[in-house]
Amino acid sequence: MPEQYKIHPATKVVRGPKRASYDRKLVHGIIDDALICHVGTVVNGRPAMIPTAHWRVGERIYIHGASKNRILATIANGAEACLCITHLDGLVMARSAFHHSANYRSVVIYGKGDIVADPADKLEHSKLFVEKLSKGRWDQVRQPNDQELKATMFLGFDLDEVSAKVRSGGPVDDEEDNNWPVWAGVLPCEITWGTPVDDARLDPAYRR
Amino acid sequence: MPEQYKIHPATKVVRGPKRASYDRKLVHGIIDDALICHVGTVVNGRPAMIPTAHWRVGERIYIHGASKNRILATIANGAEACLCITHLDGLVMARSAFHHSANYRSVVIYGKGDIVADPADKLEHSKLFVEKLSKGRWDQVRQPNDQELKATMFLGFDLDEVSAKVRSGGPVDDEEDNNWPVWAGVLPCEITWGTPVDDARLDPAYRR
Repeated sequence: MPEQYKIHPATKVVRGPKRASYDRKLVHGIIDDALICHVGTVVNGRPAMIPTAHWRVGERIYIHGASKNRILATIANGAEACLCITHLDGLVMARSAFHHSANYRSVVIYGKGDIVADPADKLEHSKLFVEKLSKGRWDQVRQPNDQELKATMFLGFDLDEVSAKVRSGGPVDDEEDNNWPVWAGVLPCEITWGTPVDDARLDPAYRR
Repeated sequence: MPEQYKIHPATKVVRGPKRASYDRKLVHGIIDDALICHVGTVVNGRPAMIPTAHWRVGERIYIHGASKNRILATIANGAEACLCITHLDGLVMARSAFHHSANYRSVVIYGKGDIVADPADKLEHSKLFVEKLSKGRWDQVRQPNDQELKATMFLGFDLDEVSAKVRSGGPVDDEEDNNWPVWAGVLPCEITWGTPVDDARLDPAYRR
């Protein structure tokens, strides 16, 4: 498998091409580091989108939701989709207003979705989702029954029309602004995890 | 002004209606607490989206970017847009795989965008953007010149076709699963800010 994704007309990054990447490993990392993506399609002639969880298996990304969800059902019926995953890594504070920016890692994926139809495959994807949230949890929880699997739609998308954009590092001001009398640099940010909160009905034996 | 947004066909939340809200103050808070949104439209018949920064002025939300950006230019030419803002607040770990969920606050906005054409208004929006990143910074930085303003497109969207969805609190398992022998609760997460990183070329007088 080539190290780079093929560049398609839709994935050719025109604005800020220096930030663009088609590197397979980089794309995989950006996808895997994120818990949620935004999924867009065209519903009744209008763009629409939802945030949802995702996971990856090789060169495919998967989402799931209620079978009756309008956006998922539209994609399931053959409508084109666009998925975007974004990590905000920091604010880039320049000396000029114009050069203020953000450090980020994002991936955009175009394509049609395929329904995961086989109940055994749906069960396997339920496992992949739960295991992404917390490794080892699948074997501890009550697994989905037929009715739950029926109520859930799983959609998979090929990683083919895909591109990444990454900005990192400090501000890039115009040369003549570099002595402007103001602080300049990066305000880094990240998602951090707090103390787990026990469910109110939790059996005391399982308290953390 | 009514406390609630009017419910439109596109903003009527069908799936998970209990999580839906049209409360103006709640929507404003979700928008203002976020630094980035995802903006989607239809480009050459296909859904497309980008992450970008946003800010709000009363009942309008604004974004900006390179004038030549494909998605912004498409919206500027009259195409419908969809904006989505999402805060992930935690992972909801249930006793059943099916009831695993996320705590989140999201807003979806539908509508057409209006170009901010007047250079004085563009300057004012440059200020609003910089001030959202860091209050008081506008007066300290080198302000945009005519060329920079010309290269930047600002688009505003009415907050009219808008809805919010919020999930909070612990897992909601089926009654018969509440004694399942596994930890259940919430893994809370949030964006946290690290130590500011001085630009490599920073005048030592301005070090933090």
